[in-house]
Amino acid sequence: MVREFDLIGRYFSREVPEGYIGAGDDCAVLPEQPGRQWVVSTDALIEGRHFLSDVDPYTLGHKSLAVNLSDLAAMGATPAGCVLALALPEIDENWLSKFSDGFYLLADQHSCPLVGGDTTGTGHGIMICVTVFGHITPGTALLRSGAKNGDDIWITGSLGAAHIALKLLQGALPANDALLADTRAALERPRPPVMYAAQLPGLAHAALDISDGFLQDLGHILKASKCGAHIIFDNLPVDPAIRNLPNELMQEAVLSGGDVYQLCFTAPQRHRNAIETLARQFSTMVSRVGVITEGNELVVETLSGRRLMPSQLGYQHF
Amino acid sequence: MVREFDLIGRYFSREVPEGYIGAGDDCAVLPEQPGRQWVVSTDALIEGRHFLSDVDPYTLGHKSLAVNLSDLAAMGATPAGCVLALALPEIDENWLSKFSDGFYLLADQHSCPLVGGDTTGTGHGIMICVTVFGHITPGTALLRSGAKNGDDIWITGSLGAAHIALKLLQGALPANDALLADTRAALERPRPPVMYAAQLPGLAHAALDISDGFLQDLGHILKASKCGAHIIFDNLPVDPAIRNLPNELMQEAVLSGGDVYQLCFTAPQRHRNAIETLARQFSTMVSRVGVITEGNELVVETLSGRRLMPSQLGYQHF
Repeated sequence: MVREFDLIGRYFSREVPEGYIGAGDDCAVLPEQPGRQWVVSTDALIEGRHFLSDVDPYTLGHKSLAVNLSDLAAMGATPAGCVLALALPEIDENWLSKFSDGFYLLADQHSCPLVGGDTTGTGHGIMICVTVFGHITPGTALLRSGAKNGDDIWITGSLGAAHIALKLLQGALPANDALLADTRAALERPRPPVMYAAQLPGLAHAALDISDGFLQDLGHILKASKCGAHIIFDNLPVDPAIRNLPNELMQEAVLSGGDVYQLCFTAPQRHRNAIETLARQFSTMVSRVGVITEGNELVVETLSGRRLMPSQLGYQHF
Repeated sequence: MVREFDLIGRYFSREVPEGYIGAGDDCAVLPEQPGRQWVVSTDALIEGRHFLSDVDPYTLGHKSLAVNLSDLAAMGATPAGCVLALALPEIDENWLSKFSDGFYLLADQHSCPLVGGDTTGTGHGIMICVTVFGHITPGTALLRSGAKNGDDIWITGSLGAAHIALKLLQGALPANDALLADTRAALERPRPPVMYAAQLPGLAHAALDISDGFLQDLGHILKASKCGAHIIFDNLPVDPAIRNLPNELMQEAVLSGGDVYQLCFTAPQRHRNAIETLARQFSTMVSRVGVITEGNELVVETLSGRRLMPSQLGYQHF
């Protein structure tokens, strides 16, 4: 098997930037980042659970890294590198070539070089495990526990499209090619706001990504920060592609749909201008959707004062 | 599934040391290491390929981390932390409890806290992916490319037992309970010389671990360092448990047997005393087994001058 897996390795041994030592030794070596602190995250993607077996390998390569970059963004960290473990049931050079192209393009865009990895055969399905490293100014990582009473609640990007695309691909909604075309990129080619997020330490109090759905993930901030929240539904950034769907389906997608590799963060009101100015600077869409409150209640209301029941929308109260 | 996998998470959320931020945020945060450089390695273990389905989960937890610590040792790095991605076909609390006990015990012994991870279900077999981080004095990482003509070649620990244990477990050798009892720990509970290895930068020129077999891995050093080697077979540290096996089988195990999470390193002759003194200090067995030569030939000879043919012993020449 050694020679076959040398072959796999060929697709993942592009040159690393100066200051790095990449594949070829027992470990990769990262460049010094004086005065910075390292952060790390790992995510596994399993065939049949996190992606469909017939997914385009190019988009799979992109997404494997994107879901990890999203974790760095949620801490306000700057990417510094990644490693990839890949277990494959068979050698398919076309698949490998496309997967690595998708992976490397996103890695290059974020100066997050692939510095090492492990490739192996498996009698089972495809498993992909990516670990990313980033750095931050010591003590400034955006934690879930930092939200303060009175903070604004912000969201980057838009909500709901990935959920609808997944339902369409799974056949849980009637086939609709136009709707799939409009929503699919949100599911398969997420673009976490990494560069914008690296500017948020010092402005934001708490952050996380919305990979489990907005209400579910906001709940993590509320629990860790021991506070509540008041959300104005009309202010939520509904993806334009799903605005005309039946109301209940649209609400479910927006409030509970997962796979959103965008951020929810909280920040004091005095930083509103800075947050919006930076957003324009980094071409990132941001929406102010609510406010952190005392207590531990999560309220979602429309502008007309109608209260939505999160309990009916997939939200598990803590 | 969320609640079930919360359950998994419970087995992997022990407290982290001061200075770390562990599970609960999107990334873990590592403590600053001023004046040090970070190194990283990742390894995947796949059921049916890297471990047998009926392996004791306690030893599997140990080994999952040990194979990664071995990579840190091979660079001369000091462990600083690890993350674990675990994909399981079913929730078996007994299995999880034992696996995590084995993992944590070794992590504690090496001050290598588990700071984060990802647990998921899978329709396939068990997949384990561990990523470790360590730090070194900048520019002192032990690379494969550092060997110099005239260097001594050293090995830590002993060779061959893991190979024999694997053959016994696979049924490729006649059942032999006594032999299995004597060799099994080398395969299932490897103990890489991490603390000793962290003393080697400044003394050694090149290093790697012997996970692919001694000749195969020494070949990596020779290729990267553009040199040859002369090995005295009688000086190789044959594991006592396999010394009385038929000669051909013993030689194969020693020269080509993999799964040896010990180091092969090269160092100038003037450091012989320091290397042996440190070895006593860290209770690590070291053996001086040969010398780096000019050219690119790898010669294995007995003390009586009989030359062994590496080509017959699984070694692929470069």
